[in-house]
Amino acid sequence: MAASGAHDLIETLTDAGVEVCFANPGTSEMHFVAALGDHPEMRSILCLFEGSVTGAADGYGRMTRKPAATLLHLGPGLANGLAGLHNAKKAHTPIVNIIGDHATFHKEYDAPLNSDVEGTARPYSHVIRSSTDCRNLAADTAYVVAAAKENGGQIFCLVLPADLAWSEGHGKIAPDKVAAQEQCNASALEAVTQELASGKKVGLILGGDACFGAGLKMAGQIGAETGATLLVPHATGRIERGRGLPSLDRIPFPVAAAVSMLQGYDTLILLGAAEPVAFFAYPGLPSRVVDPATRLLTFATPQQDVLDALSRLRDATGAVETQSDAVTAQANDLPEGKLNPDTFATVIARHICDDMIVVDEGVTSSRSLFDTSRGAGRHDLLGNVGGAIGAGMPLALGAAIACPDRPILCITGDGSASYTVQTLWSLAQQKLNVTIVVCANHTYEILRGEMLRVGAMAPDERANSLLDIENPRIDWVQLSKGYGVPASRVQTVAELDTALAEALKKVDGPQLIEVPLTSEAVT
Amino acid sequence: MAASGAHDLIETLTDAGVEVCFANPGTSEMHFVAALGDHPEMRSILCLFEGSVTGAADGYGRMTRKPAATLLHLGPGLANGLAGLHNAKKAHTPIVNIIGDHATFHKEYDAPLNSDVEGTARPYSHVIRSSTDCRNLAADTAYVVAAAKENGGQIFCLVLPADLAWSEGHGKIAPDKVAAQEQCNASALEAVTQELASGKKVGLILGGDACFGAGLKMAGQIGAETGATLLVPHATGRIERGRGLPSLDRIPFPVAAAVSMLQGYDTLILLGAAEPVAFFAYPGLPSRVVDPATRLLTFATPQQDVLDALSRLRDATGAVETQSDAVTAQANDLPEGKLNPDTFATVIARHICDDMIVVDEGVTSSRSLFDTSRGAGRHDLLGNVGGAIGAGMPLALGAAIACPDRPILCITGDGSASYTVQTLWSLAQQKLNVTIVVCANHTYEILRGEMLRVGAMAPDERANSLLDIENPRIDWVQLSKGYGVPASRVQTVAELDTALAEALKKVDGPQLIEVPLTSEAVT
Repeated sequence: MAASGAHDLIETLTDAGVEVCFANPGTSEMHFVAALGDHPEMRSILCLFEGSVTGAADGYGRMTRKPAATLLHLGPGLANGLAGLHNAKKAHTPIVNIIGDHATFHKEYDAPLNSDVEGTARPYSHVIRSSTDCRNLAADTAYVVAAAKENGGQIFCLVLPADLAWSEGHGKIAPDKVAAQEQCNASALEAVTQELASGKKVGLILGGDACFGAGLKMAGQIGAETGATLLVPHATGRIERGRGLPSLDRIPFPVAAAVSMLQGYDTLILLGAAEPVAFFAYPGLPSRVVDPATRLLTFATPQQDVLDALSRLRDATGAVETQSDAVTAQANDLPEGKLNPDTFATVIARHICDDMIVVDEGVTSSRSLFDTSRGAGRHDLLGNVGGAIGAGMPLALGAAIACPDRPILCITGDGSASYTVQTLWSLAQQKLNVTIVVCANHTYEILRGEMLRVGAMAPDERANSLLDIENPRIDWVQLSKGYGVPASRVQTVAELDTALAEALKKVDGPQLIEVPLTSEAVT
Repeated sequence: MAASGAHDLIETLTDAGVEVCFANPGTSEMHFVAALGDHPEMRSILCLFEGSVTGAADGYGRMTRKPAATLLHLGPGLANGLAGLHNAKKAHTPIVNIIGDHATFHKEYDAPLNSDVEGTARPYSHVIRSSTDCRNLAADTAYVVAAAKENGGQIFCLVLPADLAWSEGHGKIAPDKVAAQEQCNASALEAVTQELASGKKVGLILGGDACFGAGLKMAGQIGAETGATLLVPHATGRIERGRGLPSLDRIPFPVAAAVSMLQGYDTLILLGAAEPVAFFAYPGLPSRVVDPATRLLTFATPQQDVLDALSRLRDATGAVETQSDAVTAQANDLPEGKLNPDTFATVIARHICDDMIVVDEGVTSSRSLFDTSRGAGRHDLLGNVGGAIGAGMPLALGAAIACPDRPILCITGDGSASYTVQTLWSLAQQKLNVTIVVCANHTYEILRGEMLRVGAMAPDERANSLLDIENPRIDWVQLSKGYGVPASRVQTVAELDTALAEALKKVDGPQLIEVPLTSEAVT
C-alpha cells in the first residue's frame, strides 16, 4: 500500500532498533496495523488485554535492555496498560508506547471514546509527545525511541492521532542520538573507597545493570576484595544468580526482617539502587529499613551509569584481578512431606537449570525460592518491581519473545495470575517455551498476613470474605486449556517434580501446572 | 473491633444510602476491609480484577440511579479500573471510588507501589478529594457521596491514606445535602414548542432519565401528540423498551447510516443527550452526523434535569392526557438457516421477557438485536457508552446486584469478553441470575470492517494477524467452567433456542452459552 505516516513511524522505529510491537489495537490504529503488515521486520504480537501488552514490553526490555513498542487504543486502552507501565517504570525498563487517538479534527466533538490521553499517561511515563503534524511524525518517533533508552531506561509515549497515521508519508528519519548516561557521583569515590578499606561492616546495595552480566561480575570482585556484602532490594528487576556467580542477599519484604538484615552495617553504598524502604507503612514500624545509625552513601543512582561506577570502584579497590566468591552448585533432594510453600520452593529449585529465566510472582507461596535456588543452575530472576500485581505471566511472555532459545519458568500465585490471565492465550498463540506454575491457595494469602501486621484484625477473628478466592475455586487446568495451553494439576511433591520435568522437556509451546498449596497458619 | 477512621467512612457511606461496595483490596485497605466485616449493612463483593469492580459499579448505578462504592488499591489498582470509570462517566453514572493510598507519612519514601493517585484519577473523574486528616474523613466522605449524585451522576474519588483508615474514629456524620439538579434551558421552551407545533419534521434525541420509566413515558406522550420522532444516540446507558412502550430509534454506529437516518430533519431537540457525533473519524466522512442544515436545539443537557424538561414540554404541547404510541408485541419465529448474526439476533429476541435486563456488548454479532427485540418483553437495555471494550459482563454483575429479582441476559463478543473475563468468577461466587451468551467469531470482526472503512487496506488484501483470535481458538466452555460458571456450546439455531430456554429457567446462579458465529463477508 502507499506509504503513510504509519509507515514513516514504523520504519523510524525499526531503524532505531525497535523490533517488537506488543499490541491491542482498535479503529484508530488500523493504519498502523496495516503498515505493520508491510514491515515483517517488526514482529507484532497480539494480546487480548493491555495489561499483557505493557507487562510483556517490560519483560522484553529487562532482558534485551532495549525498548519494545506497544500499540494501545486511546485513553482507555492505555489505562488498561498503566499497571504494567508502573512496574516497568519502577524497574527502569525502556518502553515506547504508541497510543492511537482520535483524528486531530475529531477531538473537539468529544466522541464516546474521547478522553485525556496525555493526562492518562502522565503519572506512569517519563515524557509524552503528542504528534500533531504528519511532517514531524518521524522526528517525534526518533525522539521518543532515543529518549526511552536514556537515564537507564524510561517510559516514553507517542500519542498518534489517526489522521497522522493515514496521511501521506514524508519518509522515515535516522535514529536520534541517545544521550550518554549520566556519570556516577565520582566525587564520592574517595569516601566510598575509604569505607570499603576501613574494616568496617559495609554493604553494597545493587540495582539495574549491577545485578547481572558484567556489572554483577565487577560487584562480585569488589565484594570479594573488600569483604563488603552484596545486597539487592526486594523489588529488583533482574538478578542473575546460581552456581558460579556471586551471591546477592535480597532484603526481605517484611519490615521487621528487612530492618534486622540491615542492622549492624556501618555503611551502605547505593550502586544503581534507590534506598530500600518499607513496601507499605505499618502502625508502629518505620518507613525506612536502613538503620538511622548507618552511613548511607549514594555512588550511583538508578538513572546513572552503574557499570562505569563499578569499573571505577573496582579500579580504586584494586579488585581488577580478584576472583569473585562464587556460589557452589547446590543439589536439592526431593523433599519429604506434603506440598507447602517450603517443599514447593525446594522442588522448583531442582528444576532451575543453566540459561533459564525464572519469573517469580508467587508472592507468599514462593517466599523460600530465593534461598532454595541460590545454588541452582545459572539463571535470570525477574520479579515484580512496582508491586502492581499481575506482572508474572506478561513478564514471561516478553522474556520469551526476547530470548526464544532460553527456557522460561513462571511461578505465579492464583490471585496474581487472575489479573492478566488472558496472557495465556498469547503464550499459546506464539508457541513460546514457557512453563507456568500456578500456586493455588485459593486466597489472597499475603493479605491475611498483612491484615494482622497492620493491626486491623485479631488473629482469632474470622477473616473477611474479601480475602478468599473460594466458592467457587478457580480450576486453573480448565482456564489454561480454554486458552489453548496444555495443563495438569499435581497433588504431591513427587507429582510436581515429575510434571516439571515433563513440562520443561517441551519446547514448542507453553504448559501450565496447577499446584494446590494450603493456606497456612498466618505469620 | 475499636471504631476507626474506616468505620467513620463506612457508616457515613451507608447513612447516605450507599449499600454496596465492589472491591479488590490490598494492604493499604485492610482496615477498611476489617471495618466492612463490622458493617453487614454494606454488602461487599470481591472481584478478581478492577475492571470488573468499576464496570459493576456502573451497571449498579445505571439501574438504581444511586452510587455504589468501589474499593481500589493505590494508583495501579485504580488504573486497572479506569476503563470502567470512563464508560461510567460517559453514561453519567454516579460512583464513589475509595482508593487506598500509602500512609501520609510514608508517601515521601516513594515505595514501590507509590504513584500519583490523584493524577491517575483525574482524566476519568469529576472530582477527587484526598483525605489528609482523620478528623475530616467523615466530612470528606459525605461530600463525595452527595457530589456523586449531582449533575445527573458523577464519578467522585476519595483517596484514603492507610493511616487515616487505622486512626481512632471521630464518628460518622450525616449525609450532605445533594444540590438540586440544574433546571433545563427553560428559555428555549417556547422555541422548542413552536418547532413541535410547526408541522416540520422534528426529532427528539433522548438521553439519561428520558430513556426509561417516567421520562420515557412523557417522551412518548410528546412524540404521539406532536408527531416528533424519538431518537437515542447509539451510545446510551439505559433504554427501557419492548411491547407497550414508546419505540425509540437508535442512531446507528456506522457514520453513513447515522447521517442517512438523521437526514431530512428540520429540527432536532436534545433532551438529556449530547449531540450525537461519529464514534470515530474516517477519511472523507464528517465528524458530525447531524445535517448542518438541521436546526439543533438543546433543551436539556445530560447534566440538567431532563424529567423536569419533559414535564414542561408535555404541558406546553398539551400532551398530558395523550396516550403514547406503543410498540406491539412481536413474536419472532424460530428462524431457518444457519447461525449468523441475523438468525442469532432473532433467537435472542425470542427469549427477552418482561422485566429482563439485557446487557449488549455483542458488537458486530448482535447488530440486529435492537430491531429484532423491538417488540419483545419489556426490558432494560444496557450498552457500552464510552466504547472502552469489556463492559458487558461487569455491567451484568452490577445490574444483578442492583436487581436481584430480575433475570439478566448478557450478550458479549469473544473479543470484548476477553478484557474482563475474571467477572465470571464474581457472578458464580454471588450466585447471580445471569445468562451470558458469548458470540465466538474468533476475530475482532468490527476491526475488519473498520480497516476497510478507514481505507487502510483493500478488501482483497490479507488482514493482519493482529485482528484474529485464532490459533488457538478460545474454548469459552472451559474458561467458564474454570471460573465455576456452568457452560455449554451450541451449533445450530435450534440448539441456541433450547439452551437459552434452559439457562433462563435457572435462577440460582449464572450460566454461559458459547455461540460460534462465522466471521462474515466484511461490509
